[in-house]
Amino acid sequence: PEGHKLTSAVRFEFKATNNVAEYEALLAGLRLAKEMQVKKLLVNSDSQLVVSQVNVVCCPLQLQHGIDESYKLNIPAHGTLLYAHIEAQTIYGALHGLQTFSQVCHFNITTRAIVVHQVPWTIVDQPRFPYRGLLIDTSRHYQPLLMIKKVIDSMSYAKLNVLHWHIVDSQSFPLEIPSYPKLWDGAYSISERYTIEDAAEIVSYAQRRGINVLAEIDVPGHALSWGIGYPSLWPSTDCKEPLDVSNEFTFNLIDGILSDFSKIFKYKFIHLGGDEVNSTCWELTPHVSKWLQKHHLNSSGAYQYFVLRAQKIALSHGYEIINWEETFNDFGNKLSRKTVVHNWLGSGVAQKVVAAGLRCIVSNQDAWYLDHLDTTWQNFYLNEPHTNITDPKKQALILGGEVCMWGEHIDASDIEQTIWPRAAAAAERLWTPYNNLPKDPAQVAGRLAHFRCLLNQRGVAAAPLAGPGRAAPEEPGSCHMQ
Amino acid sequence: PEGHKLTSAVRFEFKATNNVAEYEALLAGLRLAKEMQVKKLLVNSDSQLVVSQVNVVCCPLQLQHGIDESYKLNIPAHGTLLYAHIEAQTIYGALHGLQTFSQVCHFNITTRAIVVHQVPWTIVDQPRFPYRGLLIDTSRHYQPLLMIKKVIDSMSYAKLNVLHWHIVDSQSFPLEIPSYPKLWDGAYSISERYTIEDAAEIVSYAQRRGINVLAEIDVPGHALSWGIGYPSLWPSTDCKEPLDVSNEFTFNLIDGILSDFSKIFKYKFIHLGGDEVNSTCWELTPHVSKWLQKHHLNSSGAYQYFVLRAQKIALSHGYEIINWEETFNDFGNKLSRKTVVHNWLGSGVAQKVVAAGLRCIVSNQDAWYLDHLDTTWQNFYLNEPHTNITDPKKQALILGGEVCMWGEHIDASDIEQTIWPRAAAAAERLWTPYNNLPKDPAQVAGRLAHFRCLLNQRGVAAAPLAGPGRAAPEEPGSCHMQ
Repeated sequence: PEGHKLTSAVRFEFKATNNVAEYEALLAGLRLAKEMQVKKLLVNSDSQLVVSQVNVVCCPLQLQHGIDESYKLNIPAHGTLLYAHIEAQTIYGALHGLQTFSQVCHFNITTRAIVVHQVPWTIVDQPRFPYRGLLIDTSRHYQPLLMIKKVIDSMSYAKLNVLHWHIVDSQSFPLEIPSYPKLWDGAYSISERYTIEDAAEIVSYAQRRGINVLAEIDVPGHALSWGIGYPSLWPSTDCKEPLDVSNEFTFNLIDGILSDFSKIFKYKFIHLGGDEVNSTCWELTPHVSKWLQKHHLNSSGAYQYFVLRAQKIALSHGYEIINWEETFNDFGNKLSRKTVVHNWLGSGVAQKVVAAGLRCIVSNQDAWYLDHLDTTWQNFYLNEPHTNITDPKKQALILGGEVCMWGEHIDASDIEQTIWPRAAAAAERLWTPYNNLPKDPAQVAGRLAHFRCLLNQRGVAAAPLAGPGRAAPEEPGSCHMQ
Repeated sequence: PEGHKLTSAVRFEFKATNNVAEYEALLAGLRLAKEMQVKKLLVNSDSQLVVSQVNVVCCPLQLQHGIDESYKLNIPAHGTLLYAHIEAQTIYGALHGLQTFSQVCHFNITTRAIVVHQVPWTIVDQPRFPYRGLLIDTSRHYQPLLMIKKVIDSMSYAKLNVLHWHIVDSQSFPLEIPSYPKLWDGAYSISERYTIEDAAEIVSYAQRRGINVLAEIDVPGHALSWGIGYPSLWPSTDCKEPLDVSNEFTFNLIDGILSDFSKIFKYKFIHLGGDEVNSTCWELTPHVSKWLQKHHLNSSGAYQYFVLRAQKIALSHGYEIINWEETFNDFGNKLSRKTVVHNWLGSGVAQKVVAAGLRCIVSNQDAWYLDHLDTTWQNFYLNEPHTNITDPKKQALILGGEVCMWGEHIDASDIEQTIWPRAAAAAERLWTPYNNLPKDPAQVAGRLAHFRCLLNQRGVAAAPLAGPGRAAPEEPGSCHMQ
């Protein structure tokens, strides 16, 4: 579609200072997205005037899965008034273009001007995968609102586009659920909670940066904290996990949560977990065991019953579903066809999922779990979602991948340097066309080191590239050599 | 003095969200200081209206050493319109009062209101020591401007009031010196530099938060990087430290640096270093050795000559001087009486310094070096600057103390959680009257854990209280229990 073209102008207020320049470029870009308008950007390049013009072809669009994120960035070399152009189908594509633009801008310390080297540039760019995720876990440790926003900022720098918010788990339930107001009694403390307004603010903050928020309730395991407010969700006081499958209240409550979620979390997917379910508890609890017998279910049948019933509730609220891979491994042919299987245990799962005709997100823990500190950035970089999948139709069922920052040893003090720069290595794998990806990560090291220094300049505590995850610098030296 | 009283009003735009509340209180306070005006602050307390009124008695004052930082905070319990009052002699005292006020405000998750518990409050408060410092080192690793500003923000939360900026050292020279423009050729890279405008911005940013910036040039040792731009500062290409004592250019250059400094760094003190001088190099270099003979100096005499001559240059630019303790240990009675001796090697130095009638800052490395990761917060807390000094006149010569965050293993990725919360333990020692300090740090743990969670909520990556410096959380749990 042709759409309409809006034009307005904003002058970069570049100060003659080294560090803020790129950040300001970015902020201007974000403001642009927020206001859903088209802007002219005025910058100095090699002491010449450069005007960057952004054309967005289509109307402002709701951010959703599969939206056109492509952009074209053109920076010419000659002319009296140099116009750098960004063309995009959507404002989210334009945002990516502005990110790239901000990253080719450099501060010339002698002339005190922002310059672009090696002009002309013509960059035609779009992501390889529509799903490029990062998981954060706010149950094992609470993350302050400000820190979640900082993580969202940094994701946009690496063109990641899904924040998988593993909000609650067995350890704590920090989120307010208006339908069931005692649920957040399972929070660690009165101050380690998110109001429903906080959650809405996170979603809106992310959306303005081109990032969808994927909310998760991980059922029926990983839900012990739910029973602090509603103890009848526990099979018994001796046996508090998984959620009581025999209790209708369990499913009413899930329905209430997803009903509340549907007012805030507008992404087409909801994550229903389903991993690591130890259902021994059900068999050992008399009233649940009796229920199992009545319904001719053993515990693994009851696990399947639970997952599928939760899926139906989610579908009734308009969501498509993501489940962890155990659900597929155990009863894949029973899952709703609207299920996306989230791989985590290891490699080799994705090919089975797409062979079964379901969609898949790749997060194999040996490569893309950020809490595995001994996994190097090279391992992150080389992990290929299409491994052993050659049929283009099957390849298309791989929505993308996600790096997972589980929270057992992560709080506001260390989340940033455990995520970065290793997440950026995966982000490049998820963005760049396969044939453009270097086979040898040595070719990537310089670029990735530069990106981590850029993150530092933008206030993100990204760790040195060398060594294991979140290692401290080993010795004095330049950021670019760490 | 009575001074004049200004009054204007600002309404807190408290949003009904848990995390930003205290931060907003703070921002309002900072805005207040910046504008050098007096404000009314409107907040809800226990669902009642509380108006916080700030009276600043004296005229706006230039921030300097020894300025009155006292304040009185009164929050009444009864009345239809509750006015919380802050009275202070200076805006910097008022800022401290606002910090305290922001820390007794809590978000009531049920009523969505900001409340103050346990009213009424009457707090009459002032610092025990006029010098409460934190050293950062931007030579071993460059710190981005944004990170320095974040450190300054966090200092103000703990009422620290001196940022000791160890700008340059042997490893790199990131700062622009207009008089000697090749000095920052010793920077790690073109992007790891501070322009003179950057430095001025840091000073101004700190000042608006009640923090003086103490700049340091550490001479004659710790200055190898100076010779990248001006190789004649090196005794020889084989022997690059200490700076060539026999070369008049060395002292001209120091004069140029301090002349440039005096336009930006307005604190009454300048730090001239003077530690760890290995003068073997001078004796081994023919032209320097010849100069030594001519002036009847051995190498230790030349060290004294260098330090005293640098002192005279600093005095000529209007500065009083701080030197590391070796200068005192080696020739204390020769030092200018305007010298403050900066202890670092160990405890027991301060008492000798004040016995000699000089002033002292305490930073003994066994207790107050933040790069010593195995020093616990309890060690930081219990370190007493007045140890073995009982005469009040001698006690008055102890200006205060400073925690030191040396940069060998610190960059933007880990500086915050290596500084906090241990620096806050020392900050309490430096602020609170001796008789009010608990002898048993167990009485402090809860309060300090709370403060570290507050830092996290404000976006500061303060580490868990338990364990060694910058330890990751050991297991899932509440922020307050880590």
